[in-house]
Parts: sequence; C-alpha cells; structure tokens
Amino acid sequence: MAFEFKPVPPDKLKPTGTHPLERLASLGLALPKAPGAVAAYVPWAITGNLLMTSGQLPWIDGQLFYKGKIGRDLTPEQGYEACQLSTLNGIAQLADALGDLRRVRRVVRLEGTLNVAPGFTTHPPVLNGASDLIFAAFGEAGRHTRMIYTNPEMPLDCACLVVLYAEIDAS
Amino acid sequence: MAFEFKPVPPDKLKPTGTHPLERLASLGLALPKAPGAVAAYVPWAITGNLLMTSGQLPWIDGQLFYKGKIGRDLTPEQGYEACQLSTLNGIAQLADALGDLRRVRRVVRLEGTLNVAPGFTTHPPVLNGASDLIFAAFGEAGRHTRMIYTNPEMPLDCACLVVLYAEIDAS
Amino acid sequence: MAFEFKPVPPDKLKPTGTHPLERLASLGLALPKAPGAVAAYVPWAITGNLLMTSGQLPWIDGQLFYKGKIGRDLTPEQGYEACQLSTLNGIAQLADALGDLRRVRRVVRLEGTLNVAPGFTTHPPVLNGASDLIFAAFGEAGRHTRMIYTNPEMPLDCACLVVLYAEIDAS
Repeated sequence: MAFEFKPVPPDKLKPTGTHPLERLASLGLALPKAPGAVAAYVPWAITGNLLMTSGQLPWIDGQLFYKGKIGRDLTPEQGYEACQLSTLNGIAQLADALGDLRRVRRVVRLEGTLNVAPGFTTHPPVLNGASDLIFAAFGEAGRHTRMIYTNPEMPLDCACLVVLYAEIDAS
Repeated sequence: MAFEFKPVPPDKLKPTGTHPLERLASLGLALPKAPGAVAAYVPWAITGNLLMTSGQLPWIDGQLFYKGKIGRDLTPEQGYEACQLSTLNGIAQLADALGDLRRVRRVVRLEGTLNVAPGFTTHPPVLNGASDLIFAAFGEAGRHTRMIYTNPEMPLDCACLVVLYAEIDAS
Repeated sequence: MAFEFKPVPPDKLKPTGTHPLERLASLGLALPKAPGAVAAYVPWAITGNLLMTSGQLPWIDGQLFYKGKIGRDLTPEQGYEACQLSTLNGIAQLADALGDLRRVRRVVRLEGTLNVAPGFTTHPPVLNGASDLIFAAFGEAGRHTRMIYTNPEMPLDCACLVVLYAEIDAS
C-alpha cells in the first residue's frame, strides 16, 4: 500500500505521548521511508554532535506532492502542508541516521526555502508548517532557530525545501 | 523614549575601546532589545561552542526601517544601513544569549540575504554594512567568513536578513 | 604563466591515486591560488573540528570565467563547469587552511547557489559539477550533504557560488 500523507492543520497539532514517533502517530502521521540521495551526495551527515540533512522536498516515493509557486499555484495553506511534508521527510532522515529519534537532544536549526509568487511576502506562516511539526514531534527539544529563503526557481519546481540541523547524543 | 538608530557610514566606523559594547558606544550605537521569535521558533541557539541566530530583520520594536528592493526602492547606501541595523539586532541576540559579549571568541560566519532590484549585482559593498559593523564591534575576533544571497521576495519585504554564527566560550 | 582551467566532463572524472592533490592532478586539475577575501571578511574559518569557506566564485585571479544565467546565457554543461571551478577554489581554500588536504576527514556539506534563467528547474545535474569533483578529489571522505539555492541576482552576475564545510583533524 502506498504511503499516505494527510496534512495536519495548525489547530489540530496537539500531539500526545513522549517519543517523537508516538507524538507523530497521535497526529495520524507516520514517517515516510527516508528519501535517498538524488546524485553524488548523501541525505544526512554527522560531524561531532551535529546531524545535518540535505535539502528535503515535499515528495513521497519520488512523487512530488506540492509543486509551483505559493501565492499563485498553491495557497498559503498548501504551502504550510508542503513544509510539513518536507519536514516529515527531514525527520525521517534523522531517524535513518540515529535509529532512535530519542537520540535527538535538540533540533537546533531549520532552514526553509520557499517557492513564492511575485509580491508574496507573508512567508512566516507558511514556514510554520515546518516549525509547528518540529515542535509537535520533539516538544521543547524542538525549539529551533530558523531562516527563511525564497528562490526564484526551485529544483523540479518544488514548493519548498527544508533543511534540519540537530544536536545529537553521539555516543 | 523610543530606541533610535543612527547609521554609521563606513568612513566613520572607527571605534575605540575593547569591550564590544564600549566599541559600539564609541560609534554612537547601543544594542536594541533582542527581538523575540516571530513564530514557533527561537531567536538563537547554542550547540557545543557554536551560537547561531535566526534571520535578523532591519527593524526595531517591530517597526521595519528598511523595506523594498535595493537598487530601486533603496540606494546601496541605505542597503548598507539596513545590513548594519540587522547586524545590530544580531549582536543583540548574541548578548541576550551570552550575557556578556566578551564570551564571543570569534564571529565565524555571516550569512546575508539581500532584497535587490533586477540587474543589481554589486552586492558586496552593501553587505559590508554587516561585515564592517562586526569588525568594528569585535575587532580581530570579528573576522568572519561570509556568504551573500539574494532572494526575490523577502518576509515583510524587508531589505535584508542577517544570520550570525559565533564560536563562544561555553563554560 | 597564467593558471589554466580545463573543465573535466562527468564521464572523464576517473581519478587515480590517494592524496586529493594527486587525484586532482590525474584529472589534469591543479589548485588555483586560494582567492583572498573581497572585503572585511575572510575566505575560511575553523571552529572546533569544522572548517567552513566563504562563497566561492567561478573565477581565477579575479577573472570571472562563468557569468550570466544558466539556461539562457550558459548551457547546463557550462553551469556544471562553473560549479567545478568554484569548487576547485573551495578546495584551494581548504588547502590554504590546512596545509595538507589529508587533514580533511570528510567534506560534510556543499551549499551551491545557482544563477538560473526563469523556468530552469533541472538544477541537480548542474550542481553535480561540484558534487562530482568533491567525490573525485576525496573519495569516500567526499560524500557530503548538499543544498541547492537559486538567486535572482548574483554578485558580479557570477553563474554560481559554492560553499564547503569539512570536518577536519584539528590537531
């Protein structure tokens, strides 16, 4: 059966439980298979206590779910969902890297790049699709710094790209 | 009394003193209150000996001082000032995180994202508004790497976003 | 004699040897002189075991070899070459920082920013010019994470900017 993604709207992001997977499950979210690298690179790397991901697209099994420019082809709500899905892929990378997400001490940084229409300047609520999910999954350990970019042309015309950095228990 | 920002032109950036606050004061600059997070994220985080900020806007108390595209709505000189103000907010974040800016061993990185008009390609002197201020405040400990981005649409149409990374005394 | 850059196409990237310089030489590539900083910043910095570079342009001795938008002024193949040259400059920075490139334990991250024409969305093969060269020079120690950006206007209208992060032997 194909993996299904049912986006969770902001007002429904009320997880229960303590383990990040349990918290995601309480929202009806499971981790997709961590997408492999597209080219001569890898989806994650660890240096010291820092785990970083490559840019994560809003796709599942190679199928892009959110394509085009937010504010023209996609509504801000769909942009929120796209950021949620990219972040779900990012968390799948953390899980792939660590085995157990409880080894995440803290998600220290989120970098989100958005594909927006000319004149669209209300980016923060869109990227909250990523921020809210990180906080939902990790609780206080999900309080992260963040930076928002917009790019004129995105790879495969994807709606967003999300990068996560986490401080981990390296032992 | 409202906080005032009087930008310092490059040829007047001749600080005296040793403490970063003292050096800034010698230029007529005080630190604004560190802006809080706009959404589900935090303005700074520390991992190991690395302190990083979220993207800093050229604003004070929520009022955006520099808005629009450099090379069309703003002159390069105003772009320089915008980068100076964003950096002042970034330094305020470092101070908020550390208590005492002398715990900054070195500002190791500046990432500046500029809102520029089509055809504008002389970015480096504009981002020098950030680089020059970092060097003015921290002296040799302010010699940083940097990367310049331009983005087609910026949050709230701000003129620039500045991110700082500092190696700190974590003890 | 001026430094010459002869780009190596992907199907010819079959290095021999073990030392990164030897591997590059087997491809006909030598390191250019590490470009100095353009302004009040430095081309590389080390914090802990992490070495990072500033943005590297596709230039040699101040002469920009690849200028303009990929997909309009430049072919994707020329974009690949531009990324290769920027990366060669990045590796020159690592060498300048470390003395011996064998102190690179691993290149952990590549961030590439591309200057692309409207509607151009096949970025990954272009940035492979960077990824492939890193892998050619460092082998398994060159398996990196990566993030692709596009920017509407690049400094000096350069075709690309490349940033490298490497975990190093700090001793």
